[in-house]
Amino acid sequence: MVVFVQLCRVNGGNCSRPKGTNFGAPATCRKQEEFYGRKLILADREEVEQEADNILKDADISDVAFLVVGDPFGATTHSDLILRATKLGISYRVIHNASIMNAVGCCGLQLYKFGETVSIVFWTDTWRPESFFDKVKKNRQNGMHTLCLLDIKVKEQSLENLIKGRKIYEPPRYMSVNQAAQQLLEIVQNQRTRGEEPAVTEETLCVGLARVGAEDQKIAAGTLQQMCTVDLGGPLHSLVITGGSVHPLEMEMLSLFSIPEASSESRSIDGL
Amino acid sequence: MVVFVQLCRVNGGNCSRPKGTNFGAPATCRKQEEFYGRKLILADREEVEQEADNILKDADISDVAFLVVGDPFGATTHSDLILRATKLGISYRVIHNASIMNAVGCCGLQLYKFGETVSIVFWTDTWRPESFFDKVKKNRQNGMHTLCLLDIKVKEQSLENLIKGRKIYEPPRYMSVNQAAQQLLEIVQNQRTRGEEPAVTEETLCVGLARVGAEDQKIAAGTLQQMCTVDLGGPLHSLVITGGSVHPLEMEMLSLFSIPEASSESRSIDGL
Repeated sequence: MVVFVQLCRVNGGNCSRPKGTNFGAPATCRKQEEFYGRKLILADREEVEQEADNILKDADISDVAFLVVGDPFGATTHSDLILRATKLGISYRVIHNASIMNAVGCCGLQLYKFGETVSIVFWTDTWRPESFFDKVKKNRQNGMHTLCLLDIKVKEQSLENLIKGRKIYEPPRYMSVNQAAQQLLEIVQNQRTRGEEPAVTEETLCVGLARVGAEDQKIAAGTLQQMCTVDLGGPLHSLVITGGSVHPLEMEMLSLFSIPEASSESRSIDGL
Repeated sequence: MVVFVQLCRVNGGNCSRPKGTNFGAPATCRKQEEFYGRKLILADREEVEQEADNILKDADISDVAFLVVGDPFGATTHSDLILRATKLGISYRVIHNASIMNAVGCCGLQLYKFGETVSIVFWTDTWRPESFFDKVKKNRQNGMHTLCLLDIKVKEQSLENLIKGRKIYEPPRYMSVNQAAQQLLEIVQNQRTRGEEPAVTEETLCVGLARVGAEDQKIAAGTLQQMCTVDLGGPLHSLVITGGSVHPLEMEMLSLFSIPEASSESRSIDGL
């Protein structure tokens, strides 16, 4: 059996860089290979999107497994893989999995009260998108919470290496709740400058989540302002912007993770 | 270790009646007991909601496992359990799982385009709630799909047995996509009678899903009218009402499951 492992956040999973991964190509995941007792082929987003046929090669005569983080259907990329397989007459079986899309419920906010999920990307000097903020606004107007998936940059090339065609990659970057909150506050300021009434303010109740599902998972509930400084440790992080109304039971759950006064430290979920 | 198994749909999971379950109390799940090699205590919704302290009894000195279908945080009941455990100083660990809330993506509709989830309950002669329909309307206005969780009735007593205090239970009932679609069409008719413009019509594109995640999973895409007659087989069923706009890639995925002309038969997901 040929086993591909996808490395990226397209599926809304609690994706993390496989330990021992070498970001030069061909890359392998040693820890996972030991676990599965098989050779694994690391497929970055680029490969999955541009070389899908390579993944499906020989899948009609032998088994091919494609492992992702989270649930496979968080990503259009995977629907595309299924459509290609179908056209090639290759049957498939999907094994579903937990995803940040539902595991986020561990913070105490009810899943059925989440509106459309948004993604917050790293801003650059020239590219500072604010469009996702409209979805947050719409969600809040409908009393729904917003799950914000935070950007992951892996296998990035510097402009110089890109131009010179050097396959040298920058170290991976994972957006933290602090960075996301700071970008959000900048958008709030920009809206005020434009004379608009921002749907979110420094005082909006938010929840920062880190390494959901892992033993050292951390959750912190506080204002958007507090999210700028709360220390949640390493990646992967997610941020929730609560809707207008928070149910008393939700509030009681959030209180388990509330940021202590005069502190930017959050409580661990099992620090009870 | 004491192991409780919850039997109900409160968690939005693809819940099904454990084989070998005896609905008289105390009930056991033989198949699961063989699998886990432990005695299991079947906890119905009533017990979980009313006797939570019984579940947490001795959890401070020994391990107690509480198994649910789907992800634990689909249900306020489980947040309540965690709050009780916290107050009792009992630490806990949550193992997340796939849930119909994200596994529904297997039909090809994108998860981030789902709005608020609704529940459709069995109507009685005297109780025919239509309120959930407003949420479907709001979702469609926002271009979002609606996942409808269909009612499950287990451990029900007939009025006579209830009055006479007899612990005799009716056979379990699981709402089918057909039943849900028929109730929806009745609501549409009621709205027309009241001179309202229904947010959904006989022609609205819907998706019926059955036994998601199981090998004999079935998915059927068609109009709400077709959902009244499509044969998806045994429980558990879920229904999706699509939002106004369906992305071309979503449409291509749905076409894999489209109901053949002049037939109420759906294609199996692996009937390629």
